[in-house]
Amino acid sequence: MFRAFSDEQILDFLRAQVRDGQVFTDTKTLKAQSFSPHLSDDSSGLALAYIEAGSTADIQGVMKAARKFHISVIPQDQFTSTVAGADGFEGSFILSTKRMNQIVEISRADSVAVVQPGVVNGDLDEAARKEGLFYAPDPGSKPFSGIGGNVATNAGGMSTVKYGATRDNVLGLKVVLADGREIKIGGRTLKQAFGYDLTQLFVGSEGTLGIITEITVKLMPIPIGEPTMGVAFFDNMTKLAEAVAEIRISGVYPTMLEALDSNTITALDRYEGTHFSENSDAMLIFKVDNRIPEVVNKLEELMDKHGAANVKITTDTKEQAGLEKLRRDMLPAVFAGQNHIMEDMAMPLSKLAPMMDYIHDIGERLNLKIYVAGHAGDGNVHPTIVWPKEQTETPQVVIEALQFMFHKTLDLGGTISGEHAVGMLKNQWNNEELGEDVDQIQHQIKALFDPMNLLNPKRKIN
Amino acid sequence: MFRAFSDEQILDFLRAQVRDGQVFTDTKTLKAQSFSPHLSDDSSGLALAYIEAGSTADIQGVMKAARKFHISVIPQDQFTSTVAGADGFEGSFILSTKRMNQIVEISRADSVAVVQPGVVNGDLDEAARKEGLFYAPDPGSKPFSGIGGNVATNAGGMSTVKYGATRDNVLGLKVVLADGREIKIGGRTLKQAFGYDLTQLFVGSEGTLGIITEITVKLMPIPIGEPTMGVAFFDNMTKLAEAVAEIRISGVYPTMLEALDSNTITALDRYEGTHFSENSDAMLIFKVDNRIPEVVNKLEELMDKHGAANVKITTDTKEQAGLEKLRRDMLPAVFAGQNHIMEDMAMPLSKLAPMMDYIHDIGERLNLKIYVAGHAGDGNVHPTIVWPKEQTETPQVVIEALQFMFHKTLDLGGTISGEHAVGMLKNQWNNEELGEDVDQIQHQIKALFDPMNLLNPKRKIN
Repeated sequence: MFRAFSDEQILDFLRAQVRDGQVFTDTKTLKAQSFSPHLSDDSSGLALAYIEAGSTADIQGVMKAARKFHISVIPQDQFTSTVAGADGFEGSFILSTKRMNQIVEISRADSVAVVQPGVVNGDLDEAARKEGLFYAPDPGSKPFSGIGGNVATNAGGMSTVKYGATRDNVLGLKVVLADGREIKIGGRTLKQAFGYDLTQLFVGSEGTLGIITEITVKLMPIPIGEPTMGVAFFDNMTKLAEAVAEIRISGVYPTMLEALDSNTITALDRYEGTHFSENSDAMLIFKVDNRIPEVVNKLEELMDKHGAANVKITTDTKEQAGLEKLRRDMLPAVFAGQNHIMEDMAMPLSKLAPMMDYIHDIGERLNLKIYVAGHAGDGNVHPTIVWPKEQTETPQVVIEALQFMFHKTLDLGGTISGEHAVGMLKNQWNNEELGEDVDQIQHQIKALFDPMNLLNPKRKIN
Repeated sequence: MFRAFSDEQILDFLRAQVRDGQVFTDTKTLKAQSFSPHLSDDSSGLALAYIEAGSTADIQGVMKAARKFHISVIPQDQFTSTVAGADGFEGSFILSTKRMNQIVEISRADSVAVVQPGVVNGDLDEAARKEGLFYAPDPGSKPFSGIGGNVATNAGGMSTVKYGATRDNVLGLKVVLADGREIKIGGRTLKQAFGYDLTQLFVGSEGTLGIITEITVKLMPIPIGEPTMGVAFFDNMTKLAEAVAEIRISGVYPTMLEALDSNTITALDRYEGTHFSENSDAMLIFKVDNRIPEVVNKLEELMDKHGAANVKITTDTKEQAGLEKLRRDMLPAVFAGQNHIMEDMAMPLSKLAPMMDYIHDIGERLNLKIYVAGHAGDGNVHPTIVWPKEQTETPQVVIEALQFMFHKTLDLGGTISGEHAVGMLKNQWNNEELGEDVDQIQHQIKALFDPMNLLNPKRKIN
């Protein structure tokens, strides 16, 4: 193929733009930053460069090079996407913001924090807690995912049921556009009703509209009182889901409502040496932010009403930590070192049980063991399918199972992405989930912000 | 002026499109629906027709006529805008959705409601409460504003401090676009991370991007426990604001934190026959959703710490109703039958007191009595300026005072619209608040959805 510039000419120009960060072109780094384990392979080829930006100016410089040579830019933060949202491909620039990891400001007086995109979620939360506040969104990737990536994907978590997803906690952004301008949208006020809400347009836009360089988030006060946690076992997922739906509207305002199915419980037993699976086919872990007797009584009453067995409600810190660990251990217990794909659909609350039942049916029909867990309190289902480590390619039957699930999700009025975004794995579903008209509008918005289609092409928008 | 079609030809075509609603062309109706009291006058001329749509098909029909004859369409709901956001002008179609006022569904099982735009906020809340839930956003216009208008302006209210503004409570929308297509965006799931968030782009878009025909909102559970309310008086607004900032981060999670300045207190005394102004220059009305001793103690402690006098905390239902009435009576007490303009800026919490002080300075400098109150808990300030009924035009000095306030708001990092939107009264400030780049992007988005500039021209976007 004839090209007007050689790779070396392009890289020379690129290197001259990056002053505060670093440009990598060695194969090892390019490979490591290009392919998500389990989700993609080297068939898409190697990126031309991996850039760790040190400043907004670096990002603007990379965009300048990208425009000049028509090179695709793959924004990457801590590279923890579960939908292959930030994988490189042949000839692209992978532009990482993970080095831009400064907490610019924690303001108690304004209840906000200002951070660079590379700040790890858990680090922000820890810094906020030192000031008597906390950062609410708590994705499973909390210890290693960055706020920039959280914003790009609208990450959720266990506490979304009470405190909302990332979207609900972002007040303002700075963004470098494809044309190199840095814009400031939103602000640091808790109420805003001025322009079109561009902030929320960028939340969840997965690096396709611009590159986030600074984020202002709300910090929440730590509620007065100590938390109460509990665990309960149900005969089946339908009964659990009925209990969850009623807890959701009971006024106890849970901060965690996590469901685990029988396969998941069995995996946990194997991992922890516990014997939960002897008890039941559906396990619920719950938490409220207080110990108000009426609240605790209401929880007990609802567990009882829906036939829960072995209900344990505890205010003991150690026991609570044990329950939190149990929920967190779920993933390694299920993955067990195998290849896996964890899916992420969100259902209207009343469709949680039918969806979980359907997934089990699919598992039986296709002879697949599917582990189903999820943030039941907001209808978010995470089915996980595993296959042997040796089998590098995703088995066809797994893809088939996912397709069945996605169709069913949409039939039941759900979304096929609750908190993991779209990436490369789901954008073929845009038409089906959004409809043709809305899909078309998405493309128009994309073209408005990124007319050369430089930013994260082939992701989210196909 | 030569025109290809006469008014009668246009109206004949329009009438043929509207099957379920009604077309009005009489001068009395056109006048009544064209001009917001206090905010606009007949200098902008009379609309050509006022249409009360009865269905989505009617709205599509009106848009068809608008496109055919290049006629501006002014979407209107219950016509309660405080920024002249829905006033007609010469030759336009005023398209009201107030007749589309069905509560389509209240679902306890999914914790959502589906409503048509003309449903009055208070009616939705009442219907939800019958099912043991409530609709959280509570603008001052709750008894008469429509959910469609609330969504179009991202209306807030007193409880925004705890439950968020309209934006935080909308899950999905149906919208008729300028080209006549009806699109469905968002959904009824509590978590969503699929496409670009077009739902939030339409929330607060003030009828400039499309016409909202159906809204799916979250309903909240009524918290367990009874509310606690209180009132406290401070030496000055700085002390009150310091108390508010600390309450905000104390973990008591207030559901109301309302500040009233000395002028407002004096007006209230006159209206109610009370004697609050003898006590203090700054009054705080507060509410929490519970009676937890630690929470009530914390409130007492913080009032004490910031030198509040005559603190009264009450769990008595009648006394609480009295306090709520007091806050609600504030507006008629201040307006007192005069012409008035109530402004609406939102500040970072730490800038609440400096802003309120500045407003008082402006009042003194310009010899104007300005009443300052606001939803202090989220930094939202409502200064009101009144002038005699006889003086139909807004006095120049009032406009001058507002300009000073807007500049100061932006200097302090605030927004000049916290919850009332932009309308016709503030869009000259787009450049100053948003910056040129973002203002330009707004115009591009507007052009994408409404290339003929038919929808609510000269509002929000100038």
